[in-house]
Amino acid sequence: MSSVDKQLDDLKAEIDSEVPADITVSDVTYEGPELVLYTPHPKQFARNGDLVRNLASKLRKRITVRPDPEALSAPKAAEDEILSVIPEEAGVTDLDFHQDTGEVVIEAEKPGMVIGRHGSTLRDITKQVGWTPEVVRTPPIESSTVSNVRNFLKQERDDRRDILERVGRQIHREEMGRDQWVRISTLGCCREVGRASFILSTAETRILIDCGDKPGAEGEVPYLQVPEALGSGANSIDAVVLTHAHLDHSALVPLLFKYGYDGPIYCTEPTRDLMGLLQLDYLDVAAKEGRTPPYDSEQVRETIKHTIPLEYGDVTDIAPDVKITFHNAGHILGSAVTHFHIGDGMYNVAFSGDIHYQDTRLFNGAVNDFPRVETLVMESTYGGRNDYQTDQADSEEKLIEVINETYDKGGKVLIPAFAVGRSQEIMLVLEEAMRTGKIPEMPIHLDGMIWEATAIHTTYPEYLRDDLRDRIFHDDENPFLADQFNHIDAGEDERQEVADGDQCVILSTSGMVTGGPIMSWLRHLGTDPDSRLVFVGYQAQGTLGRRIQNGWDEIPVNDSYGGGRSNTLSLNMDVATVDGFSGHADRKGLMDFVKTMNPRPEKVLCVHGDERSVQDLSSALYHEFNMRTFAPKNLETFRFK
Amino acid sequence: MSSVDKQLDDLKAEIDSEVPADITVSDVTYEGPELVLYTPHPKQFARNGDLVRNLASKLRKRITVRPDPEALSAPKAAEDEILSVIPEEAGVTDLDFHQDTGEVVIEAEKPGMVIGRHGSTLRDITKQVGWTPEVVRTPPIESSTVSNVRNFLKQERDDRRDILERVGRQIHREEMGRDQWVRISTLGCCREVGRASFILSTAETRILIDCGDKPGAEGEVPYLQVPEALGSGANSIDAVVLTHAHLDHSALVPLLFKYGYDGPIYCTEPTRDLMGLLQLDYLDVAAKEGRTPPYDSEQVRETIKHTIPLEYGDVTDIAPDVKITFHNAGHILGSAVTHFHIGDGMYNVAFSGDIHYQDTRLFNGAVNDFPRVETLVMESTYGGRNDYQTDQADSEEKLIEVINETYDKGGKVLIPAFAVGRSQEIMLVLEEAMRTGKIPEMPIHLDGMIWEATAIHTTYPEYLRDDLRDRIFHDDENPFLADQFNHIDAGEDERQEVADGDQCVILSTSGMVTGGPIMSWLRHLGTDPDSRLVFVGYQAQGTLGRRIQNGWDEIPVNDSYGGGRSNTLSLNMDVATVDGFSGHADRKGLMDFVKTMNPRPEKVLCVHGDERSVQDLSSALYHEFNMRTFAPKNLETFRFK
Ligand SMILES: [Zn+2]
Ligand SMILES: [Zn+2]
Ligand SMILES: [Zn+2]
Ligand SMILES: [Zn+2]
Ligand SMILES: [Zn+2]
Repeated sequence: MSSVDKQLDDLKAEIDSEVPADITVSDVTYEGPELVLYTPHPKQFARNGDLVRNLASKLRKRITVRPDPEALSAPKAAEDEILSVIPEEAGVTDLDFHQDTGEVVIEAEKPGMVIGRHGSTLRDITKQVGWTPEVVRTPPIESSTVSNVRNFLKQERDDRRDILERVGRQIHREEMGRDQWVRISTLGCCREVGRASFILSTAETRILIDCGDKPGAEGEVPYLQVPEALGSGANSIDAVVLTHAHLDHSALVPLLFKYGYDGPIYCTEPTRDLMGLLQLDYLDVAAKEGRTPPYDSEQVRETIKHTIPLEYGDVTDIAPDVKITFHNAGHILGSAVTHFHIGDGMYNVAFSGDIHYQDTRLFNGAVNDFPRVETLVMESTYGGRNDYQTDQADSEEKLIEVINETYDKGGKVLIPAFAVGRSQEIMLVLEEAMRTGKIPEMPIHLDGMIWEATAIHTTYPEYLRDDLRDRIFHDDENPFLADQFNHIDAGEDERQEVADGDQCVILSTSGMVTGGPIMSWLRHLGTDPDSRLVFVGYQAQGTLGRRIQNGWDEIPVNDSYGGGRSNTLSLNMDVATVDGFSGHADRKGLMDFVKTMNPRPEKVLCVHGDERSVQDLSSALYHEFNMRTFAPKNLETFRFK
Repeated sequence: MSSVDKQLDDLKAEIDSEVPADITVSDVTYEGPELVLYTPHPKQFARNGDLVRNLASKLRKRITVRPDPEALSAPKAAEDEILSVIPEEAGVTDLDFHQDTGEVVIEAEKPGMVIGRHGSTLRDITKQVGWTPEVVRTPPIESSTVSNVRNFLKQERDDRRDILERVGRQIHREEMGRDQWVRISTLGCCREVGRASFILSTAETRILIDCGDKPGAEGEVPYLQVPEALGSGANSIDAVVLTHAHLDHSALVPLLFKYGYDGPIYCTEPTRDLMGLLQLDYLDVAAKEGRTPPYDSEQVRETIKHTIPLEYGDVTDIAPDVKITFHNAGHILGSAVTHFHIGDGMYNVAFSGDIHYQDTRLFNGAVNDFPRVETLVMESTYGGRNDYQTDQADSEEKLIEVINETYDKGGKVLIPAFAVGRSQEIMLVLEEAMRTGKIPEMPIHLDGMIWEATAIHTTYPEYLRDDLRDRIFHDDENPFLADQFNHIDAGEDERQEVADGDQCVILSTSGMVTGGPIMSWLRHLGTDPDSRLVFVGYQAQGTLGRRIQNGWDEIPVNDSYGGGRSNTLSLNMDVATVDGFSGHADRKGLMDFVKTMNPRPEKVLCVHGDERSVQDLSSALYHEFNMRTFAPKNLETFRFK
């Protein structure tokens, strides 16, 4: 008998001795980090309100109860009963019964009302029909990404359960009890921005953290081939942990499956969906630019299928000696500062991922409060000694001024923006400014992936700043549903119409004017001296956006939008730049993140910044806070314990 | 056709165009780092004195010429002809003909006379008989190790040629031309003494440097199991380089063959022989102490069979992008400072191994002059701020004083000593002192492996200090052959006889009184208040030697010598300690090694020393010479390029 089977037998014996005599537990098994209990008596379980919670705290496991098939009402009858238990205002939009696991997935506009106070409504459902309810939110804005992911996971349930069982046994394997050490190996994003990738290793376990590309440098991928990474096979790593969906952290995760990886990806649920969206777009862009992408959509699907979503604050076993917890990072939807608790308290490491330390309109500031942390691996994008940003309040005022001026001239405002994060922040600024009369009411057109990304944001309001979440939850004042917002979904005809029409604001990808519908908008509006092009995000060296900022006014416009015409455009529209909407903490934010961090770590590795930024930040942290700081190179290994 | 075959074809074509019309080259092949030419015209090759040298410098390869079988005289006839060419004073002791390679191995007391001026006698031999002569020295003192190794290699010639051909193709494989980087990973002997082991890696190549045990800590072996070491299989490394034969550098090399390693071991010839001696003793000691050794003598033989000996100063290709050169380290016979020339000048690393910077009686001081060095990995045994040793001249005087005093009292001098290195140094001191009348003539008994180790030293006078070598070469004044030296080779009876006899000096292993014949000598002499126990080497914490130094006078003597009697002995003999005979540079020697090093490296990794020693040395080098210095931990990886 394997040690995991022995462990499960012991757990079952302990559970049998804890549950009341009228409840039978027919089987226990692991699925990913969770312990699954099978029972012919799901209704009795539901009646004993605290039973599952008590078992979970006693066994120190996350527990799911699954009814045996014979304990279930027939789906048709169950459906009626369930709908009679849930208040009508919950807005149930779909019920999906899974005979194999006894789960019923309830999609509702107001998931809270399906859950009830402390889960009481869920328990009522089980008491009535035996089925285990699982609740998901109906996206307030229809998102093809979210529905594709959900449909795909539904269709792959059997495969997925096999994966979860395998992962579960892997997580709960017996420790070899070898030496104790904790190491971090750097595979990318050291003294550079891009291709984020690290290995966190102990004598038992190896975990890959992020696996991104380097925008603008196709060949420079993380050093996955070295022995301490995947050199001895992709399955030599236990788990992949993804801090957030940006491509410089996630682009090459699907490649792992091409290399034969077959293990779990841990991230938040919105990160999973955004990652799927961005990876498919990454393939799309590569195809459009005539490059052969390193993987195809099949591996994106594998990635989704292997993802185990975790919520902020959930302490989760991902290996015999490693627990992780995600915390809000304030950077983009679902972005996570990730805390690794190693060897039962032996050592603790926090990876910042990308962070924003101040609150923004979209997100609360990054969490920097942990039970214990000895080492922090920290982004340093704006770690340079002069990398201070304008206050967002000032930036907003400036943006409003620019829009009003343009409106008065009868022109249109064109804003190149990244689909994920910055677009939604600007949308919130504009919505409020119109609502409070600071700028006139006019249409705000959203082109490219912005609409889709916004839809994903509205699917996960729990991940947004608390007052924004409350507006969406309680007041039906979802700002993203404001009437001004228009999705450009009818292509060139619609753009022509908008260009010929009255004053408006247009938000369009790509954010650095490197392709996408912004190219078409430049053709429509670029010659109009009354209109304005407004940059609200960082324009990297070598991009068309940066060139325009630098004064170029002859622009090559040979993109695929509008039939691939290739010619040059004389840019007559005004160009303005409004700084201060960054998703990254500035130098002050990074210093404050460490200054107020609780507890203060002993060591900091400064990564994810150019050479100057990591050196400056490393030196500043050393001098101000007397910590041991490092500016690692790629391909190094640091031992902490 | 493989790239190596293509390369060999190209080389053959080039050679064909270079050699005179009357010489045919029938085939070319690689054996280890050498290029082997086969020819039906060995005599013509020998007649063209400069031909091989010119080819070697043109092709930048080491070249060996092998006659085709039909070009060879019959061995019986050849033997007579060879003996007629070689001067009688050369003292030929053996001729061994190898039909397969056309080589004849000539063992002679004076190899130089077989070689002749600039190799003229060797060429004369080939001109006469076609055979390729190879010369080895007849050990002046018979060494069972040397003869065992030579006989074993003779018997395994076929296997060995297969190995060399395989290694040769591996060395000359085509580079993948991936990224350029140079890294060192630490697997042992960082912030500790013992289990020396490192990986030097580039994108093409991974080399294991040393693989030792940790004396007094059986369980603490190098971290071979990690992915950057042998984690993905023992054959994932290209080569093993061994700095010297001490067990803290060599003990676990045979274990690699148990793990499936099948590649080359590079070291000097004396290191190979001493390593064999010490490894077999290591197995012996383990067996005596009832421990199961991690490998057996079969793997020691595999190690010998896979060893490719290199001479000091030979620049040798060991991988497509790595050349090594050994230089005298002054520490023990054959010990080498090892220089790695990487990527055609891209980067240069020197590993000090263990060093002695000053000249001693046995060895010239360590070489610290290189074409280029960017990084030095340096031993720090005596790197602590107070680790200064007595001058050897003063130590010698003190030793002489102690011996004279004991002689005058009618007692005997018992010196526990390490078989390799320190014993021979003391032998030279005593031989000179008796020759010059500083101490009375009396027998010097050598017990344990000392005699055998001394025999190995006399086999390789080229590796000894130049004036000592000259005495052995030119003057027949080999001090090790002095009449006073007596090999204790008749066991307990002989020891009893010596103990009952007149004044004498006894050198016996083990050096730290942890077992071996010294235990028997203590039983024989320990109770004699006129005799003296004299420590001349470092006594580690926890050894019986250290305890006796600290004043213990009740000694457990339950060893296997003398029938395993177990009882306690009251030590009445005098105890003295004479410092200053260390094989390691002291603090000043280490600092001077770096100070006078040419060129001065940019970075130094301080290893092979306890925590305090490496920190002290690292800090001193930083402050005195403004270099970047590190005191690595085990299991770290440093990237240099
Ligand atoms: Zn189903
Ligand atoms: Zn990011
Ligand atoms: Zn990033
Ligand atoms: Zn040594
Ligand atoms: Zn050593």
